[in-house]
Amino acid sequence: MAASTQVLKRPIYFGSFLVTSQVPIGCYPMEGANPELTTMHGTAHSFALVNLKPLLPGHVLVCPNRVVPRLKDLSTDEVTDLFLTVQRVSKVIENIYKADSLNIAIQDGVAAGQSVPHVHTHIIPRHSQDLPQDQIYAMLESEDGDLGRNYLEAQHPAVMLNGARPKFPTVHPDAERKPRSEETMAEEAKWLAGCMGEGEEGKGRL
Amino acid sequence: MAASTQVLKRPIYFGSFLVTSQVPIGCYPMEGANPELTTMHGTAHSFALVNLKPLLPGHVLVCPNRVVPRLKDLSTDEVTDLFLTVQRVSKVIENIYKADSLNIAIQDGVAAGQSVPHVHTHIIPRHSQDLPQDQIYAMLESEDGDLGRNYLEAQHPAVMLNGARPKFPTVHPDAERKPRSEETMAEEAKWLAGCMGEGEEGKGRL
Repeated sequence: MAASTQVLKRPIYFGSFLVTSQVPIGCYPMEGANPELTTMHGTAHSFALVNLKPLLPGHVLVCPNRVVPRLKDLSTDEVTDLFLTVQRVSKVIENIYKADSLNIAIQDGVAAGQSVPHVHTHIIPRHSQDLPQDQIYAMLESEDGDLGRNYLEAQHPAVMLNGARPKFPTVHPDAERKPRSEETMAEEAKWLAGCMGEGEEGKGRL
Repeated sequence: MAASTQVLKRPIYFGSFLVTSQVPIGCYPMEGANPELTTMHGTAHSFALVNLKPLLPGHVLVCPNRVVPRLKDLSTDEVTDLFLTVQRVSKVIENIYKADSLNIAIQDGVAAGQSVPHVHTHIIPRHSQDLPQDQIYAMLESEDGDLGRNYLEAQHPAVMLNGARPKFPTVHPDAERKPRSEETMAEEAKWLAGCMGEGEEGKGRL
């Protein structure tokens, strides 16, 4: 059993949102996939999860297990584990999405664009000329990049109907798309979890 | 003597650009400041340097000592040291610039906007409503954020006159400003180096 599977037996929160259940990968039927199992990797202090509305294919988040808002809140062990996990996940993501480069970004605090008060590192695979200049950042700070809104919309749709509005104007053409289905996310998370366990950089999965 | 001073006795390169001399901080007269001494902190595997053209006040870079282009090229020790340094430098920068938040970003590869092929983490202090939405990212990928061009212009102006052109159009009003003077950068680097050594978060320097 992979280490990540063992770790993911515990519930994991992204901010106030539950992104796992206590049902480990492999112990639930995919047809009735656990709707909250969107984590793809777990370590002693960190986890990686797939995105409700990825800005580009392969856009994932790496977070410390502990729900704290700022990088400065993390211990030495947590910082170390977080960024070794970022490195490891980013290698796998780059390989399996056949990317050339990665945007790696932390919105460390509200004034920097953070919408879920839980440290999270965006990893976004890039290909030459996949987007116009700086478009990825406009997307990151747009409605689609507003993780707090996205999770609220997915997990508590009634709240959204009762007045929560997009924080920023829409800046790209497909911003109107819905968050991905629970099944799609669970399937991707399971696939990526498998990649994390297969060889140093997830080779051989495609 | 602070550890950083000892470390900075060796020459440090940001890509192909020498950003220190072998003259340690405190051993040269400020009036005739060493023009290449722009590093503010050094550790076993990493260094931080002030910026030729900071996008906002306090914008600094943290790099591994080893000149490699991608995060995936770094060893476990280098990743650990790099991000503990990012955390430590960012705490000091946030405090002394009285910021609320930080943008922390790596353009990991050319397709992600990297212009100097040496891993570098941008740390940009932010204040509420200091810029319009996502403007910092537009700046990061604009002419002013093109570190390769900036360093080439500052250290080899003749090359720039002979045909090197901005990669991207200018996107913000003060993009025409010149790179900062060597004296200004050396003075800021020395000031920040002092802050790094004074207390956990550089308090008491302002």
